[in-house]
Amino acid sequence: MDTKKIENLLREVQSGEIDISQALERLRTLPYADLGYAQVDLHRGLRKGLPEVVFCQNKTLPQLIGIFNKLWENHDRVMGTRLTAEMAGALLAEFPDARYDPISRLLTIARAETPEMSARFAAVVSAGTSDLPVAEEAAQTLEFYGDRVERFYDVGVAGIHRLLDKRERLVAASVVISVAGMEGALTSVVAGLVPGPVIGVPTSVGYGANFDGLAPLLSMLNACAPGVAVVNIDNGFGAAQFAHLILNQLAEVES
Amino acid sequence: MDTKKIENLLREVQSGEIDISQALERLRTLPYADLGYAQVDLHRGLRKGLPEVVFCQNKTLPQLIGIFNKLWENHDRVMGTRLTAEMAGALLAEFPDARYDPISRLLTIARAETPEMSARFAAVVSAGTSDLPVAEEAAQTLEFYGDRVERFYDVGVAGIHRLLDKRERLVAASVVISVAGMEGALTSVVAGLVPGPVIGVPTSVGYGANFDGLAPLLSMLNACAPGVAVVNIDNGFGAAQFAHLILNQLAEVES
Amino acid sequence: MDTKKIENLLREVQSGEIDISQALERLRTLPYADLGYAQVDLHRGLRKGLPEVVFCQNKTLPQLIGIFNKLWENHDRVMGTRLTAEMAGALLAEFPDARYDPISRLLTIARAETPEMSARFAAVVSAGTSDLPVAEEAAQTLEFYGDRVERFYDVGVAGIHRLLDKRERLVAASVVISVAGMEGALTSVVAGLVPGPVIGVPTSVGYGANFDGLAPLLSMLNACAPGVAVVNIDNGFGAAQFAHLILNQLAEVES
Amino acid sequence: MDTKKIENLLREVQSGEIDISQALERLRTLPYADLGYAQVDLHRGLRKGLPEVVFCQNKTLPQLIGIFNKLWENHDRVMGTRLTAEMAGALLAEFPDARYDPISRLLTIARAETPEMSARFAAVVSAGTSDLPVAEEAAQTLEFYGDRVERFYDVGVAGIHRLLDKRERLVAASVVISVAGMEGALTSVVAGLVPGPVIGVPTSVGYGANFDGLAPLLSMLNACAPGVAVVNIDNGFGAAQFAHLILNQLAEVES
Amino acid sequence: MDTKKIENLLREVQSGEIDISQALERLRTLPYADLGYAQVDLHRGLRKGLPEVVFCQNKTLPQLIGIFNKLWENHDRVMGTRLTAEMAGALLAEFPDARYDPISRLLTIARAETPEMSARFAAVVSAGTSDLPVAEEAAQTLEFYGDRVERFYDVGVAGIHRLLDKRERLVAASVVISVAGMEGALTSVVAGLVPGPVIGVPTSVGYGANFDGLAPLLSMLNACAPGVAVVNIDNGFGAAQFAHLILNQLAEVES
Amino acid sequence: MDTKKIENLLREVQSGEIDISQALERLRTLPYADLGYAQVDLHRGLRKGLPEVVFCQNKTLPQLIGIFNKLWENHDRVMGTRLTAEMAGALLAEFPDARYDPISRLLTIARAETPEMSARFAAVVSAGTSDLPVAEEAAQTLEFYGDRVERFYDVGVAGIHRLLDKRERLVAASVVISVAGMEGALTSVVAGLVPGPVIGVPTSVGYGANFDGLAPLLSMLNACAPGVAVVNIDNGFGAAQFAHLILNQLAEVES
Amino acid sequence: MDTKKIENLLREVQSGEIDISQALERLRTLPYADLGYAQVDLHRGLRKGLPEVVFCQNKTLPQLIGIFNKLWENHDRVMGTRLTAEMAGALLAEFPDARYDPISRLLTIARAETPEMSARFAAVVSAGTSDLPVAEEAAQTLEFYGDRVERFYDVGVAGIHRLLDKRERLVAASVVISVAGMEGALTSVVAGLVPGPVIGVPTSVGYGANFDGLAPLLSMLNACAPGVAVVNIDNGFGAAQFAHLILNQLAEVES
Amino acid sequence: MDTKKIENLLREVQSGEIDISQALERLRTLPYADLGYAQVDLHRGLRKGLPEVVFCQNKTLPQLIGIFNKLWENHDRVMGTRLTAEMAGALLAEFPDARYDPISRLLTIARAETPEMSARFAAVVSAGTSDLPVAEEAAQTLEFYGDRVERFYDVGVAGIHRLLDKRERLVAASVVISVAGMEGALTSVVAGLVPGPVIGVPTSVGYGANFDGLAPLLSMLNACAPGVAVVNIDNGFGAAQFAHLILNQLAEVES
Repeated sequence: MDTKKIENLLREVQSGEIDISQALERLRTLPYADLGYAQVDLHRGLRKGLPEVVFCQNKTLPQLIGIFNKLWENHDRVMGTRLTAEMAGALLAEFPDARYDPISRLLTIARAETPEMSARFAAVVSAGTSDLPVAEEAAQTLEFYGDRVERFYDVGVAGIHRLLDKRERLVAASVVISVAGMEGALTSVVAGLVPGPVIGVPTSVGYGANFDGLAPLLSMLNACAPGVAVVNIDNGFGAAQFAHLILNQLAEVES
Repeated sequence: MDTKKIENLLREVQSGEIDISQALERLRTLPYADLGYAQVDLHRGLRKGLPEVVFCQNKTLPQLIGIFNKLWENHDRVMGTRLTAEMAGALLAEFPDARYDPISRLLTIARAETPEMSARFAAVVSAGTSDLPVAEEAAQTLEFYGDRVERFYDVGVAGIHRLLDKRERLVAASVVISVAGMEGALTSVVAGLVPGPVIGVPTSVGYGANFDGLAPLLSMLNACAPGVAVVNIDNGFGAAQFAHLILNQLAEVES
Repeated sequence: MDTKKIENLLREVQSGEIDISQALERLRTLPYADLGYAQVDLHRGLRKGLPEVVFCQNKTLPQLIGIFNKLWENHDRVMGTRLTAEMAGALLAEFPDARYDPISRLLTIARAETPEMSARFAAVVSAGTSDLPVAEEAAQTLEFYGDRVERFYDVGVAGIHRLLDKRERLVAASVVISVAGMEGALTSVVAGLVPGPVIGVPTSVGYGANFDGLAPLLSMLNACAPGVAVVNIDNGFGAAQFAHLILNQLAEVES
Repeated sequence: MDTKKIENLLREVQSGEIDISQALERLRTLPYADLGYAQVDLHRGLRKGLPEVVFCQNKTLPQLIGIFNKLWENHDRVMGTRLTAEMAGALLAEFPDARYDPISRLLTIARAETPEMSARFAAVVSAGTSDLPVAEEAAQTLEFYGDRVERFYDVGVAGIHRLLDKRERLVAASVVISVAGMEGALTSVVAGLVPGPVIGVPTSVGYGANFDGLAPLLSMLNACAPGVAVVNIDNGFGAAQFAHLILNQLAEVES
Repeated sequence: MDTKKIENLLREVQSGEIDISQALERLRTLPYADLGYAQVDLHRGLRKGLPEVVFCQNKTLPQLIGIFNKLWENHDRVMGTRLTAEMAGALLAEFPDARYDPISRLLTIARAETPEMSARFAAVVSAGTSDLPVAEEAAQTLEFYGDRVERFYDVGVAGIHRLLDKRERLVAASVVISVAGMEGALTSVVAGLVPGPVIGVPTSVGYGANFDGLAPLLSMLNACAPGVAVVNIDNGFGAAQFAHLILNQLAEVES
Repeated sequence: MDTKKIENLLREVQSGEIDISQALERLRTLPYADLGYAQVDLHRGLRKGLPEVVFCQNKTLPQLIGIFNKLWENHDRVMGTRLTAEMAGALLAEFPDARYDPISRLLTIARAETPEMSARFAAVVSAGTSDLPVAEEAAQTLEFYGDRVERFYDVGVAGIHRLLDKRERLVAASVVISVAGMEGALTSVVAGLVPGPVIGVPTSVGYGANFDGLAPLLSMLNACAPGVAVVNIDNGFGAAQFAHLILNQLAEVES
Repeated sequence: MDTKKIENLLREVQSGEIDISQALERLRTLPYADLGYAQVDLHRGLRKGLPEVVFCQNKTLPQLIGIFNKLWENHDRVMGTRLTAEMAGALLAEFPDARYDPISRLLTIARAETPEMSARFAAVVSAGTSDLPVAEEAAQTLEFYGDRVERFYDVGVAGIHRLLDKRERLVAASVVISVAGMEGALTSVVAGLVPGPVIGVPTSVGYGANFDGLAPLLSMLNACAPGVAVVNIDNGFGAAQFAHLILNQLAEVES
Repeated sequence: MDTKKIENLLREVQSGEIDISQALERLRTLPYADLGYAQVDLHRGLRKGLPEVVFCQNKTLPQLIGIFNKLWENHDRVMGTRLTAEMAGALLAEFPDARYDPISRLLTIARAETPEMSARFAAVVSAGTSDLPVAEEAAQTLEFYGDRVERFYDVGVAGIHRLLDKRERLVAASVVISVAGMEGALTSVVAGLVPGPVIGVPTSVGYGANFDGLAPLLSMLNACAPGVAVVNIDNGFGAAQFAHLILNQLAEVES
């Protein structure tokens, strides 16, 4: 969309020919290609209600710096996922105010205040300490999106009492992200306890016949408890996106 | 929970010692074993907000009739999934008011009126006519749960315009169930178009390297568009359960 | 071993040249081939402490009748596994005192009294009603071996309270056989609760990405709880053999 | 074929005993073994209309230098695929006029001018920036073969409008190479839009249940749109060979 | 597209505002949904140059009769694939002029003369007699599309001379469809012999470690000879579609 | 469980309100969360009769030192599994009395005397020298648990006499752990020889179609000999846990 | 090869221009296509030293009768594999002297005497009675080829003594065919005992994680004993062909 | 076998109580365990006619030096397989007369002259230059065993003429080892050409859907040509062992 088209659109809004919702709708389905790189975000942000996040894995340092610079010009909050320590170092040199978390491997730059959060929250549950990177990727992504998160870590089913003790808070969550490697049984048990939807995130933690996450993936797809859907192996980010779309709608309805 | 305990609980409610929400909470986590079979439903209905549904596949006719009779004594609405024509015949002989749909293979008995539905709805999208049984299993399950559904069938990506034409209604849906066999590309495209969460249901439709649904299952788990989570192959019922949990929360917030 | 060798062996025993345990040891490793068919059983019975059981699947009716006749001449208790109704009919015509159980598909003929059982027992736990044939194959095989069994059925993790209620009895079991299809999470949870060894039996119950038992098989092999070992898919019989070897040793030590 | 046989063949051509097409046909099926190493190319070039390309992966530096030297003595254009930076360095030291592209990992040496190209072209479409190495391997191989290429990168189906905008040019292409990792849905959508044949190239880009390219491979083999055939994972070079054989025939017919 | 829009389009053509190619282009991307069922074909026919073909597998007899009637009202040639003998019987009763071939399982109805064919042709090569159904599905589909086909059957590599004898005709083909089960080696050998593109069709013929076509599928994807692309297992129809798109372009260029 | 609750529990024991076994039972199912980290062990030790062992793989050095320090404050014997040489170095600097075995990769710290062992023992059998790390992980774990172990290494079935020679000792074992890579046939042969239960441990030793342990895993799951159950690939530790639970019960019965 | 060419060849032999071995060599590589169907056999018989055998599975009755008639006109011995009882009935009606064996599913017609056999023999070893059909397919195919066979059935490794007792005869065999389902361990043990080559034939006998023969296939490919090569699952016929080629050479050398 | 027993055995030979073949037979099945390490070789050499070869992969340098020293004390020829350059360096320092070949990764030490070889030979055929390490492992192992080898390299089926030119020599071979990666079609074509047995060796050469050798493995197991058996992926050594057992028997018959 060239500047001309945007001007026209805005003039139509100004003159009352179209109202805000019509304008939004048109922007939502804009040809992206006439826009500069940074405006692409606007597009996706409008369509999915998701701020832009950079998947950093396998990108070169110059590519990363370029992308972050472009985004930072146009946004108040930018996040990257799957950064190595080296990538983080290069970006921290460029953006001294950025924050990098080596566990979740997320890097965030923000000039805006975190908005005040409602009481509604997502629960992030994980089975073992080795699942922490994926669980934190999910939790911190939700926080980046402005959602409230409660964490319930190391509550694997080998000692079921640890999980049962948390039942009250889990029941209160609007959506649960259940992160588990090994055999992934946690997700079934959680889904049997809580009234809300549960998003299973299988992790590649384990050895031998875990087959890089295949075991918990199949486990969660076959969960005997109702209300489970599954995202890709180790995909904490994807689970957070999905959970945010639910929380987002609840917030919209509420307001 | 024996009758005594239930009486005590109810007396505590009567006397005001505990309020309704406390009572509900206690019932939610009741030991199930002391209850009769029918009350088990109460338990799950309370915990997950889901009415009882019977998975009929591989059950004998006497078992089915027994189960339906027990449930029908205690509920106003009962549904069974995956019924063969023979199973349906046997149950229709027993419950003349039941309705059986040979495409979705669902059988429903209901003495209650369907509740008035809000404007909020789930969209059920399917790629080809062979995906209809799974799509209808999802759609009619949602309707059994009291949710509103809009169907968008035969909108596979081989002719993308068919899908794009429906965009406006899809964007309006609170949650989308995307049912697809073959390569399952529909789910990615839908998730790229709509702002809400998308539940992918891979189907075993296809031949050769579809490998009984493995191809669309992997496809959907790897969907490049944000906001996709996946249920088991051909599991229209599971997708509907998940979708209902989202719609249910939206309704609760709204009310 | 020809008759001559057996005579010699027995004479050595009689004369005190060798004692009973030495004789047993020598019989244990006898060349089988010189014995008639029926004595083969003696061989395995001695080596593994397991009575002879016939795997009937894919055998013809004449073969089955022949095998049962031979075994019945030389034993007081004979059992067959995986019998179809047709197989059972043919054998019941031949052995009117035999008992056939259509759920476990086991057929038993016994002229001996069941020995008095000790207080020690194996627990057989199953997740859903569809796992019953495999669970009963395990339970009744143990009973055929003279072991005491307690059954805990339909205690899947979707409603964890059902399982927790049985904890006291499960803790008391010397060995637990955990039978589960779907995602097989039951086995992990059970192993987290009980102090004894747990034998996982994955079943092919489920659909789609269960992949004929692969999902619970991988699940159980990756169980996060300690003390789990696994047998082949649907192999209730094999689990019972393994459990019996443990119970047998406990009985020997005790006596 | 020794020199004598080639002389005889040429004399027959000179004397008119055989015409050019007969001579070509005989050369096409020549025993290769009597030729020196460099002439092997002549053989394949004649049979398939494809110049010689060296698959460099896993070859030692001396082997590579030897092969390139032999080919360069007998050809005007030589290309290598899958070169590491180290391999490229060694060859650039030997052939200062060579050009190495680190993204596609191709190295080219050419003393001939690129022939003038017809208006006919192949489109190379890719889903994401991570697919670039494979897409560029395809595109630059085609250019090495003397074909015209148009590139359409980063047009994944997560934002379908980006792709739809390019429809006019895609429709004009004689053949489309569709490069995609993740779930590979791009290929189905492209094949639904364009009238020509589409060659799918699954890439190993993605994580978890992508299983090193298995997900998009199965996806493309099951594409619901007509006119899709698939090459090996990450095999941009193979796709280019296939596309060139189509373009080549079109050029021959035209001329 | 409603009637009004079509009228307008045609008027613009009539008045010379747009020329035929522009009109075709617009029709090519018409919204399909406003058209009746029969015109959907027009749509795909325009986009891909492919007449409508009905995939009959898993459709009911009434569905099939309904679909064939609708298509037959609007087309001069209609074909169905994968018909059982029962399906064929039902359709032959409805369309006495239809022809059914039990080997390829194709049924064709045609009121138009087969167009005169050019000298250009596709070769269909098959390894063994068990591959015939798939090979004939490919060959007869091409003939339905108006293409010329030459068949080379039972030329598997176990006796390579049979194949070599056909070299001259194979070399002359514009495109080769290579159908093979077992290990699928035929495709590699053919691709090493001919100058044109080769489409591999793996078949599920074989036993044991053929794994329902997986062996030849992997074989063909890894073909060491250049110029091979692969379609789904047993998908003779898909190979014919792909081959037709190549032949079609050659014909267009020629004319 | 806070200190108060423990005091109360102990007072009840002191006053005779509850007896020891009741107290143990209550401690066994204590909410874990009120205890400090070290007391968690108490919990599992009580439930499963297993001392605490640290799975060190993928943990950082500070994490490891922290965990070992905490455990060492509260236990007389601590063990870690899967330590790299670097990890071992760091812990040896911290705990000079620790012992590290580079073959089994186990590190042990113990201030208590090894308890006197009964005559009962577990046999650890391995097929080849490459299986030693896994076999030793099993053997030394058992020794850490206070069990007696006999080792039978390099007795693979390629030379069956080596194994047959050990028969007498194997027959005497209460439980056999059979460790094998390659095709894993050892486990079947051993189970055919001995009267006790056999725990199969497939290892990832082998190449090509061993597929990282899949071959022996499937082998052992399908073992034709009775009395085999299987743990995860390379999971010598898990096999030892399972074997210990059997030996433990035998010891309890005996005492 | 037309009659003319055969005449010429024979005349050259007659005149002494070429000797028998040269003539044989030329016939061995004859173009097959000019010969009638029956002479094709001559071709393969010459090339591989193997009489013609018909793979009957999936062929129609008329096809089978036609093929057997053609072969019987030109050969003294004809065999078919994988015949159903129905196929056998139809052929026995046509060839009353044929013999059909329902276990191996082989049908043979022979007018020639079985040649006198040398002392050299192949051993066919099988693990269980369920492997008999495959073992007999191998054994009887060898006998059809004129080879001597010794059978060693039901010698699975669960009772290793049964196998060890046969060692002397196994050691005397020139080649061993080892047929085994379940985990296939028999093949490794046999190969450890005998000095000659061992051909492993995995069978699809077993259940669950046997995965239709995958378990013994992988087992045999990974056999730790030297001198094992493997054929396809259930392919007793292929094993016999391979064994015959070895016996054939030994016979040729001897003569 | 202790020294005493060996002495007795030898005395019996000396006195003529037993003849050489009886003595050999008894040694062949000797308990190995009473012998020192070096005599183990004698055992296997006698049983399988195979000199001792050390599989060096994953062994430490001290282990390797120890093993080679022990073997070298008792044998005239010792070989190791899969040596890294570092391993080779360490052994060359210890055994200056050893020879190391970096392509096949074999190291040989020999004080005996290579025996004169018969005219009989094995052919080693390979598809591409990347298969050389595996092909040379096979070829040089055969030479180490004293067999004659002819090499036919780079004769892949992409240019079938290269292979056909070698037909005469291939036909003359007593056994053919066919080494191929990619799709492994070479093996089928070779088996169609030659009269002797063909041993297929799939290699892990290729990329993408080669899946580390799975593609050629399945290919070869499904070879449509008769007389093919297969060894593990990349197992040139195993193929040579198998081929040697055939050549060995031929030599024994001849002598």
